[in-house]
Amino acid sequence: MTDISGLKIGVLGGTGPQGRGLALRWAKAGLTVVIGSRAADRAEAAAAELRELAGVTAISGLDNAGCAAAADVVLVAVPWDGHRELLESLRAELTGKIVIDCVNPLGFDKQGPFALPVEEGSAAQQASLVLPESRVTAAFHHVSAVLLADLSVSEMDIDVLVLGDDREATDVVRALADAIPGTRGIYGGRLRNAHQVEAFTANLIAINKRYKAHAGIRVTDV
Amino acid sequence: MTDISGLKIGVLGGTGPQGRGLALRWAKAGLTVVIGSRAADRAEAAAAELRELAGVTAISGLDNAGCAAAADVVLVAVPWDGHRELLESLRAELTGKIVIDCVNPLGFDKQGPFALPVEEGSAAQQASLVLPESRVTAAFHHVSAVLLADLSVSEMDIDVLVLGDDREATDVVRALADAIPGTRGIYGGRLRNAHQVEAFTANLIAINKRYKAHAGIRVTDV
Repeated sequence: MTDISGLKIGVLGGTGPQGRGLALRWAKAGLTVVIGSRAADRAEAAAAELRELAGVTAISGLDNAGCAAAADVVLVAVPWDGHRELLESLRAELTGKIVIDCVNPLGFDKQGPFALPVEEGSAAQQASLVLPESRVTAAFHHVSAVLLADLSVSEMDIDVLVLGDDREATDVVRALADAIPGTRGIYGGRLRNAHQVEAFTANLIAINKRYKAHAGIRVTDV
Repeated sequence: MTDISGLKIGVLGGTGPQGRGLALRWAKAGLTVVIGSRAADRAEAAAAELRELAGVTAISGLDNAGCAAAADVVLVAVPWDGHRELLESLRAELTGKIVIDCVNPLGFDKQGPFALPVEEGSAAQQASLVLPESRVTAAFHHVSAVLLADLSVSEMDIDVLVLGDDREATDVVRALADAIPGTRGIYGGRLRNAHQVEAFTANLIAINKRYKAHAGIRVTDV
């Protein structure tokens, strides 16, 4: 089992629902978390709120560059619009680090959600191209922000697919998934197969609407 | 619950592993099945084998056109290469019928499986464009042919995502999934979100390789 207990986890876009929910759960699990946001004061306000919710002290808030510089492993949980520009601006801070992209490039119209075409193939592949000296993985696309934020949900009941071409990096990210109760990290393939995992979030949103659920997936026979 | 007991199910490509496995399970469930293949004698040979395996009489074999004409609901389980041409040749036979596309356009190289680009977006959307007078759905992409063929596996432990824009058609296909023990049909979104479901088969193949499994998925909270 990969030891992640000493890692500092940065969450870029940590004031958005997905980043905030994962930060909360990682902090509850005893990890050190740094929330990143465009404005340091908004990041620190979110961190203060999460410290109280989680009942822990090891959550701080910084601007995105400060967060990326401070952390050992960095989750990218920013809107797709602006994804590339943010990562380009943080290339130096992210050098040599494990980066986890959880961004889902989706559009919405009258018929509901749909996958946006991505020139590089996927958000994760774009991150990998923009950050050639980082260890880019993709994971946490399908975790419900609503359930993450609701601490009365003690077990998440979801598998997190972890994609990447660097075995050691995907093992660390799988351990970060395992650290959240009821969540299991499963290797899900190489980065070139990230598009369909990101796009599948559109299907989960359609399922949520039809069944009034917060759907996730479990991989069977594993 | 949608009543499917009187339906005759055609399986185009019924001599291939996926079609053969589903035909076997549907026949075991008491449905009437027609195997389709390019050559009628190969279809009848496969049907004879399945009759013996399933211990039932209601499986016959015909050429693909005969199969499409005879059936009420038609599963398309042919290789991606030739998919469009086959469907174009069966437009008349498939008019007005529910068509279930389970084709996964995948490529393989030294790094394993990957999703092929599809001009129409997905195999299912291609089918829908080629068959404007049929009721095209997409389903059964992720069901392990190995487990389907192994009757010692009494419960499949898998959810089948059923995609389509015709509610009545997707309800019939969901019922066809429910008819297989351990399998549950879940509405999975509109046809325009089929690509990622087809492509996700590449991830399942990668998972199978890593974990030595026959992986499927379950949707949680539904």
